[in-house]
Amino acid sequence: METTANNESRRDFMKQTAIAGAGLLLTNPADLFAWSTTPPNIKTRGYAAVDTSGKLQPWAFERRPVGDDDVLITIKYASICHSDIHQMKGHWGAQHYPQVPGHEIVGIVAEVGKNVTKFKVGDRAGVGCMVDSNPECESFKAGQEQYCPDTVFTYGYPEKSSPTGISQGGYATNIVVKEHFAVHIPRHISFQEAAPLLCAGITTYSPLMKFDLKKGDRVGVAGIGGLGHMAVKIAVSKGAEVYAFTTSPDKVDDILAFGAKEAIVVDDVKKLYAFGPKLDYMICTIPYAFDLAAYASVVKPFGTFTQVGMPERFEVTMNALGLAVSRVNFNASLIGGIPETQEVINYCADNKVHPKIQIIKAEQINAAWENVVNKKARYRYVIDAATF
Amino acid sequence: METTANNESRRDFMKQTAIAGAGLLLTNPADLFAWSTTPPNIKTRGYAAVDTSGKLQPWAFERRPVGDDDVLITIKYASICHSDIHQMKGHWGAQHYPQVPGHEIVGIVAEVGKNVTKFKVGDRAGVGCMVDSNPECESFKAGQEQYCPDTVFTYGYPEKSSPTGISQGGYATNIVVKEHFAVHIPRHISFQEAAPLLCAGITTYSPLMKFDLKKGDRVGVAGIGGLGHMAVKIAVSKGAEVYAFTTSPDKVDDILAFGAKEAIVVDDVKKLYAFGPKLDYMICTIPYAFDLAAYASVVKPFGTFTQVGMPERFEVTMNALGLAVSRVNFNASLIGGIPETQEVINYCADNKVHPKIQIIKAEQINAAWENVVNKKARYRYVIDAATF
Repeated sequence: METTANNESRRDFMKQTAIAGAGLLLTNPADLFAWSTTPPNIKTRGYAAVDTSGKLQPWAFERRPVGDDDVLITIKYASICHSDIHQMKGHWGAQHYPQVPGHEIVGIVAEVGKNVTKFKVGDRAGVGCMVDSNPECESFKAGQEQYCPDTVFTYGYPEKSSPTGISQGGYATNIVVKEHFAVHIPRHISFQEAAPLLCAGITTYSPLMKFDLKKGDRVGVAGIGGLGHMAVKIAVSKGAEVYAFTTSPDKVDDILAFGAKEAIVVDDVKKLYAFGPKLDYMICTIPYAFDLAAYASVVKPFGTFTQVGMPERFEVTMNALGLAVSRVNFNASLIGGIPETQEVINYCADNKVHPKIQIIKAEQINAAWENVVNKKARYRYVIDAATF
Repeated sequence: METTANNESRRDFMKQTAIAGAGLLLTNPADLFAWSTTPPNIKTRGYAAVDTSGKLQPWAFERRPVGDDDVLITIKYASICHSDIHQMKGHWGAQHYPQVPGHEIVGIVAEVGKNVTKFKVGDRAGVGCMVDSNPECESFKAGQEQYCPDTVFTYGYPEKSSPTGISQGGYATNIVVKEHFAVHIPRHISFQEAAPLLCAGITTYSPLMKFDLKKGDRVGVAGIGGLGHMAVKIAVSKGAEVYAFTTSPDKVDDILAFGAKEAIVVDDVKKLYAFGPKLDYMICTIPYAFDLAAYASVVKPFGTFTQVGMPERFEVTMNALGLAVSRVNFNASLIGGIPETQEVINYCADNKVHPKIQIIKAEQINAAWENVVNKKARYRYVIDAATF
């Protein structure tokens, strides 16, 4: 996909040559750029993966110049999502390195392109899992940009406009994105608490809203990490009776404090069958292989089970007979659209539905990643971007 | 589960001992049966698996005597389902041998127990995938006997009343079942054409009816074997626009003759992505591992995909990201209940929705099984029980 920034520099150049005079013989378009005056790239510092080790290191790199439809955001905080770890480790396919992860990003608008109307310099803004797409796409027009085939996800996607050739994420001091993909962060929620809403919040809010959650519905949440604890809090705030399924006994007190009716410690899948088919709906955030038929068995016949955790190779294996016996409808959900992302941020700000977070410095990222993998995060690590 | 037949023989015995006189010292209940006069078992001949080779051989064995709620059916025809092969080969777990497969069974009632009201001797009757269950179970009461935890499936299930200790299927000259699990075969459909309806018919009819199929709906059928060709015919007869997905180019003419709008030869999963998300509903009968996300991609967002084929180990692996992007709801369906089984038989008889069959002799079973595995069946082999 050709980017606006490059198109713009080409147009600017053509104007300049027209002014300089005709008759100049251009044999190779690439020659043009050798002496064109493109705006300078934007310098940034961040933490990048350079291989599949799951260890990040400081890295100085460049963003594209601010295009007409772009905003430059000075990042204040970026939080750690399990997806960052999966992707950097190559669990979802081979990666280009160095690559900067991070798709829960908040900060202050530092510069805006000339077509930008949604933001002005000084605004509080957030960026989630997407940074660009094709405005002509039906999914884009429907506010479901995540399903557009041209969508550029926030890190590791081919992006011609990026000096590194791929999109680079938010573990960094700044980011340049199309204004469409930035959302407003209201003043009545802190940056730190807003950051996790950009992925963990929207990814759980979107399917819960699609399910058309009604007060008193019995909702299950499987996997109580960054996404799961937000699912519990959002479902509770919407009036659901929430049942949380965790493998960590020491999360039980927190889960009850989040407002769940019951926390079920799944040290054996038999506990799921013993629980029985009681729930109207289940959202599963488990990002590793798990026994889907066993987890589906807690949902009432003809209820719905939504998978949002994305395991290695995205693979979920199920027992078709078990699923048949449960009569549960299974689906998977991917993040949420931009209008819905603004909606969940406003909802959480207005209703004080805040993630439980731990603020860390850049140098603590690698230790934090190990904690996430070892289920020790409580419940979202938020990196202070001043420490990059 | 204690069976009626055994309970009955025990009660009969106790009456007899009471008549014979008191004072008899019974130290071991097992001794009782050594000299009791239980009704004789019923002799039968059939074809049994004796190991996981997938080769059957002639076997003479015994059925339980006809209990008060039982009917004895003289089998006229039994047809071959892919499930027979999977189970005998141990694909779904270790088996007891010798085991007689077959759960598409039709014949004539030869004897009825004293409580039987649904049948009289001489009636045409069919037996599908179930032979016994617990009438107190909620699923049983709801006419969804296949979901009752106590249900005895037609072959290979522990069954105390059976002289062999397990239920034995319909590749045989007769069968004894609880009357509840036998259905009527109307006179306006042949035995041969009725047999495949007992599994292939009901397994495809049930989810199609649950989907609430409307005239003009675009329905996909993946895997055009015994189940799939019935799914095509049933959906066509209900007014759907049917798209059939097959890996066998030489089935295309048949598929169009069955009334499908289009037959798509899936020699490469790319053909599925090229087809695009057009269908309202998809039923998948493929009984082996397949690329679920690719097949789901032909269904419209928020449409439904039902799996009825049961692969090895019942395992279906899906790409959760692919499923998320498709936004398709996935479920699996197991056969159908007894009232629904009667319904599909009546429907197919009334509307002349007949399976395409090939009649074979018992000695051809092993060759027919190989053809089924090699996708050479057109489309259901029906065994003439006179040849056992």
